[in-house]
Formats: sequence, C-alpha cells, structure tokens
Amino acid sequence: MKKLLIINGPNLNLLGVREREVYGSRTFEDYLAELKAEFADRAELDYFQSNGEGAIIDALHDARNSYDGVVLNAGGYTHTSVALADAIGAVADCGLRTVEVHISNIMAREGFRHVSLIAPRCAGSIAGFGLLSYRLAVLSFL
Amino acid sequence: MKKLLIINGPNLNLLGVREREVYGSRTFEDYLAELKAEFADRAELDYFQSNGEGAIIDALHDARNSYDGVVLNAGGYTHTSVALADAIGAVADCGLRTVEVHISNIMAREGFRHVSLIAPRCAGSIAGFGLLSYRLAVLSFL
Amino acid sequence: MKKLLIINGPNLNLLGVREREVYGSRTFEDYLAELKAEFADRAELDYFQSNGEGAIIDALHDARNSYDGVVLNAGGYTHTSVALADAIGAVADCGLRTVEVHISNIMAREGFRHVSLIAPRCAGSIAGFGLLSYRLAVLSFL
Amino acid sequence: MKKLLIINGPNLNLLGVREREVYGSRTFEDYLAELKAEFADRAELDYFQSNGEGAIIDALHDARNSYDGVVLNAGGYTHTSVALADAIGAVADCGLRTVEVHISNIMAREGFRHVSLIAPRCAGSIAGFGLLSYRLAVLSFL
Amino acid sequence: MKKLLIINGPNLNLLGVREREVYGSRTFEDYLAELKAEFADRAELDYFQSNGEGAIIDALHDARNSYDGVVLNAGGYTHTSVALADAIGAVADCGLRTVEVHISNIMAREGFRHVSLIAPRCAGSIAGFGLLSYRLAVLSFL
Amino acid sequence: MKKLLIINGPNLNLLGVREREVYGSRTFEDYLAELKAEFADRAELDYFQSNGEGAIIDALHDARNSYDGVVLNAGGYTHTSVALADAIGAVADCGLRTVEVHISNIMAREGFRHVSLIAPRCAGSIAGFGLLSYRLAVLSFL
Amino acid sequence: MKKLLIINGPNLNLLGVREREVYGSRTFEDYLAELKAEFADRAELDYFQSNGEGAIIDALHDARNSYDGVVLNAGGYTHTSVALADAIGAVADCGLRTVEVHISNIMAREGFRHVSLIAPRCAGSIAGFGLLSYRLAVLSFL
Amino acid sequence: MKKLLIINGPNLNLLGVREREVYGSRTFEDYLAELKAEFADRAELDYFQSNGEGAIIDALHDARNSYDGVVLNAGGYTHTSVALADAIGAVADCGLRTVEVHISNIMAREGFRHVSLIAPRCAGSIAGFGLLSYRLAVLSFL
Amino acid sequence: MKKLLIINGPNLNLLGVREREVYGSRTFEDYLAELKAEFADRAELDYFQSNGEGAIIDALHDARNSYDGVVLNAGGYTHTSVALADAIGAVADCGLRTVEVHISNIMAREGFRHVSLIAPRCAGSIAGFGLLSYRLAVLSFL
Amino acid sequence: MKKLLIINGPNLNLLGVREREVYGSRTFEDYLAELKAEFADRAELDYFQSNGEGAIIDALHDARNSYDGVVLNAGGYTHTSVALADAIGAVADCGLRTVEVHISNIMAREGFRHVSLIAPRCAGSIAGFGLLSYRLAVLSFL
Amino acid sequence: MKKLLIINGPNLNLLGVREREVYGSRTFEDYLAELKAEFADRAELDYFQSNGEGAIIDALHDARNSYDGVVLNAGGYTHTSVALADAIGAVADCGLRTVEVHISNIMAREGFRHVSLIAPRCAGSIAGFGLLSYRLAVLSFL
Amino acid sequence: MKKLLIINGPNLNLLGVREREVYGSRTFEDYLAELKAEFADRAELDYFQSNGEGAIIDALHDARNSYDGVVLNAGGYTHTSVALADAIGAVADCGLRTVEVHISNIMAREGFRHVSLIAPRCAGSIAGFGLLSYRLAVLSFL
Repeated sequence: MKKLLIINGPNLNLLGVREREVYGSRTFEDYLAELKAEFADRAELDYFQSNGEGAIIDALHDARNSYDGVVLNAGGYTHTSVALADAIGAVADCGLRTVEVHISNIMAREGFRHVSLIAPRCAGSIAGFGLLSYRLAVLSFL
Repeated sequence: MKKLLIINGPNLNLLGVREREVYGSRTFEDYLAELKAEFADRAELDYFQSNGEGAIIDALHDARNSYDGVVLNAGGYTHTSVALADAIGAVADCGLRTVEVHISNIMAREGFRHVSLIAPRCAGSIAGFGLLSYRLAVLSFL
Repeated sequence: MKKLLIINGPNLNLLGVREREVYGSRTFEDYLAELKAEFADRAELDYFQSNGEGAIIDALHDARNSYDGVVLNAGGYTHTSVALADAIGAVADCGLRTVEVHISNIMAREGFRHVSLIAPRCAGSIAGFGLLSYRLAVLSFL
Repeated sequence: MKKLLIINGPNLNLLGVREREVYGSRTFEDYLAELKAEFADRAELDYFQSNGEGAIIDALHDARNSYDGVVLNAGGYTHTSVALADAIGAVADCGLRTVEVHISNIMAREGFRHVSLIAPRCAGSIAGFGLLSYRLAVLSFL
Repeated sequence: MKKLLIINGPNLNLLGVREREVYGSRTFEDYLAELKAEFADRAELDYFQSNGEGAIIDALHDARNSYDGVVLNAGGYTHTSVALADAIGAVADCGLRTVEVHISNIMAREGFRHVSLIAPRCAGSIAGFGLLSYRLAVLSFL
Repeated sequence: MKKLLIINGPNLNLLGVREREVYGSRTFEDYLAELKAEFADRAELDYFQSNGEGAIIDALHDARNSYDGVVLNAGGYTHTSVALADAIGAVADCGLRTVEVHISNIMAREGFRHVSLIAPRCAGSIAGFGLLSYRLAVLSFL
Repeated sequence: MKKLLIINGPNLNLLGVREREVYGSRTFEDYLAELKAEFADRAELDYFQSNGEGAIIDALHDARNSYDGVVLNAGGYTHTSVALADAIGAVADCGLRTVEVHISNIMAREGFRHVSLIAPRCAGSIAGFGLLSYRLAVLSFL
Repeated sequence: MKKLLIINGPNLNLLGVREREVYGSRTFEDYLAELKAEFADRAELDYFQSNGEGAIIDALHDARNSYDGVVLNAGGYTHTSVALADAIGAVADCGLRTVEVHISNIMAREGFRHVSLIAPRCAGSIAGFGLLSYRLAVLSFL
Repeated sequence: MKKLLIINGPNLNLLGVREREVYGSRTFEDYLAELKAEFADRAELDYFQSNGEGAIIDALHDARNSYDGVVLNAGGYTHTSVALADAIGAVADCGLRTVEVHISNIMAREGFRHVSLIAPRCAGSIAGFGLLSYRLAVLSFL
Repeated sequence: MKKLLIINGPNLNLLGVREREVYGSRTFEDYLAELKAEFADRAELDYFQSNGEGAIIDALHDARNSYDGVVLNAGGYTHTSVALADAIGAVADCGLRTVEVHISNIMAREGFRHVSLIAPRCAGSIAGFGLLSYRLAVLSFL
Repeated sequence: MKKLLIINGPNLNLLGVREREVYGSRTFEDYLAELKAEFADRAELDYFQSNGEGAIIDALHDARNSYDGVVLNAGGYTHTSVALADAIGAVADCGLRTVEVHISNIMAREGFRHVSLIAPRCAGSIAGFGLLSYRLAVLSFL
Repeated sequence: MKKLLIINGPNLNLLGVREREVYGSRTFEDYLAELKAEFADRAELDYFQSNGEGAIIDALHDARNSYDGVVLNAGGYTHTSVALADAIGAVADCGLRTVEVHISNIMAREGFRHVSLIAPRCAGSIAGFGLLSYRLAVLSFL
C-alpha cells in the first residue's frame, strides 16, 4: 500500500470552470474521487492545492517524511520557479520522488510554456493526456 | 452602478514612501479616497493589496462572481508570473475583465520591465500616467 | 480649453474596412465626430492621418508650438521607427507631451508587435480598449 | 482489444549495450516480451525499430490504417526532425494518435535534448521512467 | 524539349490525405498527370518521392547527368538538412539547377519553417501558390 | 482579362544601373514593355515605383478597388516594414491578393535579407529568377 | 550595537538535510547560535525564514524601521523575483541596506543561477564561502 | 573644387532646439554657413534635409550625377533602414562615395543605436565630435 | 596490425566533382588506394560511404565488434545529427573510438558549419588539411 | 600566521584618481597599509598590481608554492579572460584558493560587467563593499 | 601647439606587410613622417605601438599627464578588451580625450568586428578612411 | 628539413601539474624531447611558451621569416583573442602557415570553449588526442 500526495498548483482549483477547451469541464475533486476508488487497494491518495508558491514548497517539505511519492502539477510555476525546482531536489535528496504532470500538452501551447524548470529535478514527466495524466503518474509508483 | 476591485501587488503598499522620484509621494489610500469620491455615483470601488503572488491569484479567483471588473497593478509580478497571467485568463473565461495599470512608464525603465506576461490576458493596458492610470482604468469600465 | 492633435499612422485610414475582427467596423472619422461632440467644451481635437513615416514626423514637429498634447497611434511604425521615437523625444523637449494609443492589445498579437520603440519617449501608453483607447488618452490630458 | 505499434528510433537497438548508467542494461526485446505478456488480453503490441529517419516516417504512414495507436521513442530524431513531426501530424489527421516516450529524463540531460520538435504533434508525452515509460504509454491507450 | 525531375520529400506522398486545409485534397499523382499533359510538347517531367533524406540526396546526385533541371519540394528537410543543401550545391557545380517549391506559404506558418537551409543553394524559390507552385517552377525552366 | 498592378519599391528605379552583377543590366521599363506585349491578350499591367514607404502603402490601398492582383517587389522594405505588411493584410481583407517577388535569391545574400516581414501576408512568394520572377508572378494570377 | 536581521529564503529551512555535498550538513539554527555568540557584544542578530516570496517581502518592509541592516539569502528567488528586488530597493530608499549572501558559488552551478535579479539593489554580495558567507556579511555592517 | 552634398535625416531640422545636452544648442543652418565660409575655395557645399526615408533616398539617387561626394547624417534611419543602405550601395556603384556622420557618440547611447545598417555601405564613418563631425567628413573628401 | 573503418557521409561520393576550390579535384577512391598502400604493413583500411543518416548509424553499430577504430567524415550530418552523435557515443561505450575528420576548415566557412554535434562524442577531431586529414586520423590510431 | 597575496588587475593602479564616484578617492596603497596594520598578527599581506593579463597569470602561478591564499580583483579581465580563469583553476589544483573581490557592485553597472568568467573557478566572491571588500576577503582566509 | 600621442595596437606593426587589400601597402612609420611634417607647426605627434594589452593600458595611463589627446587604433583589442575601455575611461576622468580610429570600415567586415567595446568611452570614432583616418583624428584635436 | 615553431599559450607551462584528469601528468618539456628525437632527421622543432597575449603575437610575427610552420596551442586565448587571430592571418599573408592544436577535446568541455576565434585563420585544427595532437600537427607539415 503506497501513500501518495497529489499537489495541484495555481489555478487548478478552477478546473472545470476555466478554459474548458484546454482543460475539460470536470472538476478535479470529481476526478479525484474516481481515482481514489480505482486505486483503493493499492494506494492512499491525499490531495493539496494552493495558488501560492511558498505554500506548495511547504507542502513538499512536509511530505518528505510521510509519503512514498508526490504527483505534482505545478501549473504556471512549472515555467518560472527555481525555488520549487530546488524544493523538489531537496526532498529527492531525502528519498521522496516527485512526478511532474500536465493536463494539456504544454509543448503545443505558448512558447513560455515549453520550458519546465522543475522537470530536471523530477523522477519523470507526463503531459498531454488530460486528467488521465494523473492516473498514469499514480501508476508509475505502483 | 459598476462594482470594481482594485488590486495592488508587491511593494505598492509603500507608495509615497519608496522611490518617490518614480512613483510620487502620495499614499495609495489617500488617492483611493479621492477616486471613490469622484466615482461615488457610478462605481463601487473595493481595494486589495498583497505582496504575495498566491494571495493575488486567490483575490482574482474570488472576484469572479462578485465584481464587474478588476483594475490590477501587479508590480514586479507583471514581468515574471505565468501563474498570475493564467489566473487573469481563467477569470476572463468566467466573464471578469481585468485592466492592467502601471504608475510609471515601464517601457522607459530597466529592460526586464519591458515584458509584461499578464498583458496578453488583460482586456487593456494603461501605463505611465502616475496615479491617473488608475482613474483611466476605472473610466474604461464606465 | 485644451488643444489636442490626434495622429493616426499607417493603415488606420482603412479602419472599419480592414481586419474588422481586430479593429471593429467603424471608421475613425465617425468615431472622431462623437469624440469631438463629447469633449466640445473641454478640448479642441484636430486630426491628422498619414501612411508616411516622414509625414508623421513633420506633423509632430509642427505641433510643438500649437498644441497642448498629441494622441498618437503610430500603427506599424510603433515597432520599427527610431526616427519617430526621436521625434517624440524632440517635441517632448519642447514641452509637448505625446500619449501612445493602440486599438488592439498589441501584447496579445504577433511577437514583432510586442516591442514599442516609441513607448519610452511617450508620456503614457494605452492599449487594447478598441476606439475607447483614444477617449482615455484625451481624458489623460484633461 | 487495441492494436498498438511501438516504434523505436536510432540507437535504441543497442539498449542494454550502450550507456547503461542512463538506459539500463536490459534489451528492449526482453522487456517487450514482458509487456506483451502483461497486456495479452487487452492489446496486441507490434514492434518496429530503425536507425533511419525515412524508414520511421514510412512506418508511421503505413500504420495509419492498421493500428489504434503508436508509442514512439524517436531517439535523437526527437530533437532535430521536422519531417518526423510532420509525419506524426499527418497520421493524426488520419485519426492515428502517437504517444511520445523517453527512457531517460531528457530535461535533465544536455541542452540540445530539451527541445522536442515532435511533442507538439503527439497526443501526449512520457519521459524519465526508464522502460516503464513504454508501459505507461501503452496504458494511456487502454 | 527540356527534361525535368520533380522531387517530393517527406510526407508529400500523403498529399490529399493530410492537413487538407493547408495542402488541399488533391493527390500529387493526379496533379502531375495534368502537368505532364499541359507541358507535353515542351518538357518531359519525371517524378520521384521519398521520405528518406539519403534517398533524396541520391536522386539529386543521379540527376546531374540526365536532367536539365530539378523541381524540389524538400518538405520538412527544407528546414533541417545541411546535407541536402550541400547536395544541391554539388549538382549545381555540375550544371544542374534546382528550384525550391512549397505548396503552402512557409513564412506564414510556425517559426521553425521560416528558415530554409536549401534556399541559398537553389536557383530560385516559389512558395505559397498551392500546387500551382510546381507549375510555376516548371515554367521557370522553359 | 486580368488587371494587375506591379509595384516596385526603393532603388528599383536604378535597375540596370546599380549592382549589375546581382540585378542585371536591363532597366525595368524595358522589361515591362516586353511583359506587357507577352500578356497583351490576357492581362493589363500597370506599374508604380516609389522609394517611399508611405507612397507604396498609399498605392496598395488605392489598388484595392481597381485591380485583380498586385505583384510587389518591396526592395529593402521587405525586411523592415511592419506598416507595409499590415497594408498587404488590409487589402487582402478587401479581396486583393499580393504576390511578393524578388529579383535576386534573398536567402543567398546578407543575413538581414533572410527575413521577409511581408511574406506572411502575401499570397505567395517568388525569388531568385532575375526579372523572370515578375513574369512568374503575373502567371500566377492567370 | 547594531541590530541586524538575517533572512533565509526558500528551502534554506532544510539546510543540513538537503544536498549536503553543496550546502554542508549543519543546520542553520546551529550555526546561528554560534554567530550570535561570536557577535554578542557588537550585534543583535534576529532570524526569519520563509519559503514564500510575499512573506519575505513583508519581512523586508517591516524591517525598515527596526533594523540597521539585512543579511539576505534569497535562495531560488534570487534568480526570478523582480518583486523582491523592488522590495530591497524600496527599503534601501528608507535607509535600510541589504547584503546578499549565498552559501554555494552560484556562478559555478547551473546557468540559471548565474543571474541575480536582486544583486543590483543590494549594498554588496558575498557568495561561495559556505556558512562563512553569513559571518562575512555580518562583519560588513560592523 | 569638390562639389559635396550634405544630407541630414529625421529630426535634424530641430538641431539647436531638441535635446541640447546631446546635440548642442546651435542650429545646423548656422553651422553650415561657417562651414561654407571655411571651405569656400576648396568645396561647394549643398544641403538637403528631410524627415522622410523615401525623400532621402531620392536625394541620394539624384546626387549620383552631380556631386563628388555625400556627407550623410541619417539620424534614426541609420539603425533601421535597409532601403537607405541599398541606396548608398547603389550610388556607390555609380561612383558616388557617401561618408556617414553622427553628432553624438552613438555607441555610448541606447543599445538600438549601436547598430548602423548603413555603415557597411559607406566609405567611412565619423561619430561623436559634435558638429565637428561634419567638418571632418568634408575634409575626408579634400 | 590495426583494423580501421573509414566512413564518408553525404556528398563525399562526389569528391573530385563538386566544389573543387574547396575540396580539391581528386576522388576519394583514388586517395584511398594511396592511403592503403602507405599503411599496408600497419593497418587494414576498409571504406564505407552513404548519403543516408540511418545507413551511417547502422555502419557504426556494425563496426563495434570488428574494428579497432573509425575515421568519420560525417559531411553535412556533422552539424545536424543528434542521432549520429548518440551512435558514436554508443559504440564508444563498447570500446570503439571514432575520430572526426573534415577536408575543409569548417570554422572558416558558413556559420552553420561552426557547430559540430558529433565532436563531443569523438575521441578527437582533425579539420582543414584537405585529404591529409584522413591520413593524420589514421596515424592517430597507430 | 597566514601568507596572502593581494593581486590587483588593470586600472586599479589609478584607484583614487579614476571614477571617484564609483571607486572612491583613496589610493590602494594607502588602504593596504591600514589593512596590513589591522592584520599584522594574523596575516602577512603581499601586493602585486599589473595591467597585463599575462603578468597576472604569471603572478598566480608563482604564488602557488609560497602563499596560503590569493585575493584577486581582476578588473576588466574579470569579464573577458578565459586564460585567467584557467590559471585560477590550475593553482586551485595545486591547493591555492583564490577569492574574487570587486570594489563596486558589478551587477549594478553595465551589462558586460554582469558576467564573471573567473567566478566559477574562485573559492568565493565578494563585491560592492568598496575597499571593505578586500578586508572581508582577507577575513575569509583567517 | 598640441601634444598628441598616436597609439597603435596589435598587428599594426605589420602595416604594409599584412592584408594589403584591406590595409594598403604603406608602413605606418612612412605615413607618420608625412603626418608629422604636415602638422609640424600645430601639433607634436608621438607614436607608440605594442601587441600587448597591458602595455597599451600602461601607455594610456602614462599619457594622462603629458599629452593633450590620444589617437588610438586598438586593433583586435577594440572588440574584446573591457580593461582597455576602462583605461580610456580612467584617463578621460583625468581630462585626457581619446579618439578611436580604424583604417578599414570595421562594420563592413566580419560580425565580431562590428562591436567596439572602447567606442563608448572615446570622445569620437573615425573608421574606414584608410590611413587618412589618423589625419582626421589629429585634426579633431586642432 | 623543415623548421617548425611550437608555441604554447597561457597555463600550458603547468602541464603535468594542473588538471591532470584533463591534460595528463606529463610536462611538455618531457614530451618535447621525445618529439624532437622522433623527428630529428625531418624537422627542427623550436619551442616558445608565454602566458601573455602580446608576447605570443610578437613570437608569431618574428617567426614569419625564420620558420616553415607554427604549431600553436593558444590555450584560453583560443576563445577570446581577435588580436591573435589577426596575427595568424597576418603571418599567413607572409606565407607562414599555423596549425591549431588542443590537448583536450574542447567541444566536449564548457560552452565557452566551443568557439575558436583563431580556427578560421589557421591552416588546420587538431584537438582531443592528448599530447599526440602536437605530433599529428608536426606530421601535417612533413
């Protein structure tokens, strides 16, 4: 039984509300319930969302002693946050692997989304599969 | 009667104190009172200031159901925050228009201030008129 | 009573004809009449349009002794004309302030429109409000 | 029962032989057998490898009428081949989705590996999980 | 009577199938028949297509002693192949002129299509006229 | 019977005089007479030349109601004029197609000639065939 | 007796835990005690750590009336935060000098660490001496 | 007796009025009289000023049969005009040498003034000596 | 007795025919005979040429068990092929050293030839000595 | 008792004479005397100044067997000298640590001063404290 | 009577020997004699040449108390030496003006010669007039 | 009997002492003796080493009348010295060919070592073979 933390970054609380043609019309909470049900016997899935860079770093730090892995959709911070990249590296040093996920195919969008500062510190990256990206990320730990 | 939210980002709480040759010596609260008085019969003006990127994103999200428009001076986050740009796009999707304002002429200052990551998501941009920039932004909604 | 000159640069004579999804379907002359009417008791608005870089510079030079301000939509010259930027600086030296306006949100269009060579020399910039940009610019002088 | 084609590009025939500290010491054929066994009741997995850009494009073209999906590790062509990206787009037009996989975390390696020309045309991308990347890609179709 | 070789590069075998909004819905073979008919008394038109960079270079080399000119649509290799550019230069040294054609206006598409590595070595370039580009290229030899 | 306007930009009035190793020793007027004769029964060819950016834009604007097409050699403005590119787009909106021509192979010359700002707005581009480029451009309209 | 505030930014709470080969294995609290003891008769040293950009800006603002100087290790925000740079400039305007410190030699690490956005606003910079960097920074105020 | 044409580009008609700290407070006409007097027995100096790129090109073209040399201060067009550079090259082909002058030291000003597109086509360049630059340029022909 | 494989990439089959001012007028076969003769008692020299990137990679792979070293002139692929660089690295992992040769001084030619993607993976590089480059490369193994 | 060598690079012999608003009006010799006095019982301070790159490299080489550390202000060579960076690395290999100092805050000056080629090879860097930078550097060795 | 120092940098001792098509076939000593003769009654001209960066800086420093001006052809150091630029600035601070000269038109040569690091610190720049450049530079002081 | 001069640039006097994992542990003098012995009957080998850019240029100049060729390892000046590149070109004009050598594979090291400013002026380049690079360079003259 693996204990995993799913962290969603800025604006992902508006999933199902915002840019539906890119992100779909389902809320993450709804999808999370389905995910928890599917993996009930193999993984315990916790969830944290924040629009704040510092709060996400805090959550990552705190996770280092209580989880077997982190599934992280860092939203806009993916492209701009050295501090978050450092945090992922720091907890990796403590043995906690982070998997980067994106709902959309970031490489097919605006140029400033083509660079992921956090990717080099993550164990792996999954992008473009819609909400399925999270499911594949969970599977990567099992 | 329009309901508008004015959001000031990092360091704008020090207006009137900091770099007076660039930003003038008046506090924003003082100016705001004047603005409220002028538009008393046409607009209700609320005000929010924070130095935190996440807090500003939260405020934008919250505004999407209660305001007719946002006047945003994102300060230093103007040039670095993809997350904030995404938030502006997200609430625009919900019908809330944001107008970008700057007190100084950002194009006449350091090179790193010439790029506004949030401009492409805003309904319009006004820069360089001193505190008058806010007044013009309010007028753009009336 | 302020005396202001509105200068429109290249292709703006085709307003209402060209790229209506970007610029709208109203001619500038039509809008100008409305603007003149609104500000009749506060400002005298003159109008000049040319597709030629040199002609616009000439107009700016000539304005320096007869106007209280210039509202300038430099069209495509915004992004390429050092000579026009120098002209704006030159008349500013003579006490004539120029306000830059754009109908569309230039930051949300092609990359080569993201740089304004004239912005650093203008007193302020207003972009993205459609024809309303001109009205806000006029208001900035009153 | 889904019919999927796994395509491996240049140098992946040397898997298990070359740069073991990056790619591991297992041959792809060995791993493929395991994969086929695991998905025996849900997917038919065919395999094609070539070091030639043209041969991979040919294989993609041919697949467009006979497969439900393609799992593609384009190796070094990932970073240099517009022709391959066009091919992926062309078969996508015909209804065949391609998923990009990488064994290593390409974002943590040399700078020239940070750009994927094919990613914008792929349905999704998975990188950094070792051979598990292929398994997750197959799962994305099921 | 001129003897000309038309060479089509990668993915052009899918003409009429792929991205019809860009390339139209007619196959090249169909168009070629029409072209041959039109020029029957002035030019002999041969045709070669390959998705392989090496095969196209081979075809160019072989053409140097048997043709009066080459009409080349190098597809994706246009933007990435120094080897192909060298081959065009090499046969030009032997007196065989190559004319570059593109069906679409490559300058109006993605940034990576704006650079043609082969153009500097070609006798001339024609782009953006749809299949008519080939006809104009043939005419340039007559 | 098509009515076409050929526009030549800066320095093309010196054709036959200037840089003969690049542009040949024939004047354009001489070539034009030949062209008119050849197409006498299929096209009416008018001609305009100016060294001024604004004058060329004016000519394009004026052409939008009286011509079936424009053949444009924008000379040095090809590489620097956003205003001219906008003008081409504006008249295209009115149904007037412009074809870009260049006498020399601009891609084989100095680096600053490799970028054409107007190409994305033109219907097609033809470069490198000497004066024949104009003939091919006329043919593209017939 | 000088009153100094030491501010540590993101991930520095994990000092002694994270990347020990770069940052050493001692916690900052441990080192701080030693520092306080050494300077007991010459300086009062307060300490603040946060992973949040906004919280650090708040702390800087608050310090402007109560401290004689700030020793700041901004961690990852060093390279990305215009807002923090503005804050340092703002309090400098109020007479509070900030000294930038780094434990590691940032110029010998990844390229994105070579740019310090805050350096131009700081009174001085010290990098690469391990925890000794803090001691030298304190000395610079005495 | 040499016949020389001095051409001044955009905004140089405002010499003595504009940016006096950079360009001095003397009008060019005043200086020209002095220059003519000094060289009365060695050179005939004519003068042309225009703010229009096309008009300056026209003047250069016209000069090719009537002058022994041109002294050109192209102002803002120095940095942006390929058309003007081509014109200088064209008349050089006809045997007319152009010397580039600048009043200020353009290399000590804004970055966009560091590139001179016309310099490569000029016989020589003189910059930074104030109005003396013109005198030195005249001397270079004697 | 060393066993070495000389691999020539694209267009080198035209040596002696193409760009003689750069590459000389001798065919490679002719030079190879001389080379074999000179080293008859010290090295066995085999030769492979192909214009195909994949075929060259195949040849390198095959060589890893039968040769003591490879002398590679990758022609145009030198500057564009990550796949070939990976192949050189892969066989180096198997103990097969590759030496890069160029006939011309690639650093004295066009800018796109200044970057060698394969150099970092080769044991050494020799350029600019004409056909003598091959001889020096062979000597480096003896 | 530590033996340290202070090396000053180009133009630092003019300290106290040149750009006093940046570097102060004190000569280095004067400051050095004070420094020697302060550290008389803990360090022996020698001094070398040269305007020559080679002479500074020679001095560094010579120091490797006779000093415990080097305090280096490389002046303009900081930004341009790979040879000096290599020298610092070479003596570091021999156990001699070099600390980089700058009198001014190089990050707040011209862009070309923001890059230090020598920093990655130095043990640490101190900049912006005026002459105090040297004192802090000496302290870093004690 | 002005006292001027002419400084020639690297390789200018080979004038008349090296690259005669660029620099002419006359030695500098020969030209200097002519120059001295011409200005015998108005200026005393001294001459210094060195291939060493440090020696040129030393010469500039020494000149600051004994000369009225410096004419400097810095050769290759023009494009690479921050130290030399600093030296020019330093002596300018002491009242000694330096004029930059180049024999050839550096803007018409290789790209790396287009940037002059020393120009921003010089009083003026003269390039492209052959040896006449020196004469004009001397005249600028008289 | 050829007379050759081997020139070693900065830090190469520390060969065998510095960065042994890159450059090996043998001194150059030791290797030189071996080289002289091997070529005793075919070449006379002289040796010069300096850490100074000017001294190396002087040595090259002096060699132009007394040697048949130069083998040059310019060390760090390889990447930064336009003056040295000019010197190589100057002596090449006098008939003296220079061959560039590097002990290490500069293309496999830091990015700033990938550019050789001197390569375009050298007759050929040899890199990456350790001290053997010198031997191959000598052989290239025999």
